[in-house]
Amino acid sequence: MKHKLLLSALLVGAVCSAHADPLASWNDTAAKKSIEEWVQNATNKDRSTFIPPEKRYVVFDNDGTLWPEAPLTFQLQFAVDEVKRLAPEHPEWKTDPVVTAVLNNDLKAVAESGQKGLMRLLELTHSGITTEEFDQRVSSWMDAKKDPRFGCRYDQLGYQPMRELLDYLRKNGFKTWIVSGGGIDFMRVVSQKMYGIPPEQVIGSFALSDFTLTDNGTELRKNMKGAFYDDATSKPVAIHLFMGQRPVAAFGNSDGDLAMMQYTAANPDYKTFGLLVHHTDGEREYAYDSHPSASGKLIEGLTLAPQKGWTVVDMKQDWKQVFDPKLCPVKN
Amino acid sequence: MKHKLLLSALLVGAVCSAHADPLASWNDTAAKKSIEEWVQNATNKDRSTFIPPEKRYVVFDNDGTLWPEAPLTFQLQFAVDEVKRLAPEHPEWKTDPVVTAVLNNDLKAVAESGQKGLMRLLELTHSGITTEEFDQRVSSWMDAKKDPRFGCRYDQLGYQPMRELLDYLRKNGFKTWIVSGGGIDFMRVVSQKMYGIPPEQVIGSFALSDFTLTDNGTELRKNMKGAFYDDATSKPVAIHLFMGQRPVAAFGNSDGDLAMMQYTAANPDYKTFGLLVHHTDGEREYAYDSHPSASGKLIEGLTLAPQKGWTVVDMKQDWKQVFDPKLCPVKN
Repeated sequence: MKHKLLLSALLVGAVCSAHADPLASWNDTAAKKSIEEWVQNATNKDRSTFIPPEKRYVVFDNDGTLWPEAPLTFQLQFAVDEVKRLAPEHPEWKTDPVVTAVLNNDLKAVAESGQKGLMRLLELTHSGITTEEFDQRVSSWMDAKKDPRFGCRYDQLGYQPMRELLDYLRKNGFKTWIVSGGGIDFMRVVSQKMYGIPPEQVIGSFALSDFTLTDNGTELRKNMKGAFYDDATSKPVAIHLFMGQRPVAAFGNSDGDLAMMQYTAANPDYKTFGLLVHHTDGEREYAYDSHPSASGKLIEGLTLAPQKGWTVVDMKQDWKQVFDPKLCPVKN
Repeated sequence: MKHKLLLSALLVGAVCSAHADPLASWNDTAAKKSIEEWVQNATNKDRSTFIPPEKRYVVFDNDGTLWPEAPLTFQLQFAVDEVKRLAPEHPEWKTDPVVTAVLNNDLKAVAESGQKGLMRLLELTHSGITTEEFDQRVSSWMDAKKDPRFGCRYDQLGYQPMRELLDYLRKNGFKTWIVSGGGIDFMRVVSQKMYGIPPEQVIGSFALSDFTLTDNGTELRKNMKGAFYDDATSKPVAIHLFMGQRPVAAFGNSDGDLAMMQYTAANPDYKTFGLLVHHTDGEREYAYDSHPSASGKLIEGLTLAPQKGWTVVDMKQDWKQVFDPKLCPVKN
């Protein structure tokens, strides 16, 4: 009897898992089919396209690929909110034009301050504090703030089709990594919860820290030394540094991801996969390519994709829903 | 009948695994007991010392902890051999004092050239080539050379007790990482084969590379930009950068490992473990602490260990054998 029950349970499990679509938020279009076909080819031992499990490393951009990047990247929004929160304690910031722009809500001026202005914002909000304090500040911000358009916590805005894709790849033996221009410490606060990706599989922009012994332990204090901006041609450099091998698939959404995608496509050993998320859905999310509001310019990628055989996801056509309605019940 | 056979097989398996000592190369001394006790405490759910599997990150130094570092570190020997191999193609090197010292086998002069001389050697042998070429050169060197004292390939000289310890920890759910002053690209060529550690779990000294598109793919060319020497207070910095969390155990052999061990010991959440390998065995390996031949100075660590409750391994007393006789049949 016991055995019969066990057998029934196993059978029910098998039937259920056979019926549940791991990519349920994807419409049955060519994009979805291209993913499934590549995974089937990569995991079937009898095919020449087989990739051994120990080589199944796949890399995902974050901003615009796994969560929104408009009107500002979430990390830039965090920096802006932190400057506002901290400014009263720092009268010496008053003369800083970037701080003034932030306090006046003049995001155009912030954007126009360029790389220099961005570095200054990072210096004010991402350095001079311990790594624990920084994590705590990111967590507090995540707990306190909501995205104004969608009315949800920022960490509830992971794209549901991409979260399913991460799960689907992991279930097929792939190791999923983030390779993003976003800050490595910022993303690691939410990567496990949002994407099931542990901190060591998150690669991002970084700077070093200072180690000191303290009265009751040790301290790592974030600074701006050795600042490394993990975008464009720096992405393959960072992949080699952190991961130590070439991926077999790369997922991005902007021209800043092309170097990583080309590095992946040039893997001499395996049939690789490349995918670009094209933001075509102004109603459910945002529509942009050549003129993004902050980051995510996509021009060259749209030309290169058909030449390279990369999948271009049309968010409007290919995704049944953008966000998980259980996490963020917006119109989908 | 089938079931009976299966059952027997299972029972035999259970009996065998109960009898096989995972730390067979360790004598039954206090060092071995301290390891076993900590692992039992960390993996027993019913104890307050339990560490959840997702937090079981442990870090190992490499030179002098997992393999020998005398009379030169293996990587420095590689650099010396490479300079000799390449010098005929580079007449312009002739005037370089470090090259001259190497060609004259004047290792004392090489050592006395200090950090600057070492950087020059690395520049000549570890940069200006693609990452693939570098891997190929390390592999060729490993295939061609033998350690003159032990008569074995360098990648057969992992300390057998430490290799057992790595396996034992992994079997108990720990993720094993290398955190070494050695070059990250150099170690990654052998880490999987020697220690069962994949490339992404190897942290070491590094420099950046340049990415370019080529006619038939892409290229990462090693250079000396952003050179980071992963020793002493830089080790916790690198652990935070690569691993993104604090370890629960740290294994080293020199004062250069103390910052990493203190960072680990200051983990606020768990009862941690620290271990220093003390080179006391001039007969089977080398005996040194305050006066190593090249690297591995150990003075402060021997004072700190009893205060911190760290295990100090006396290689002569605590290890039944130093090397795996199947890989390197030396006198043990």
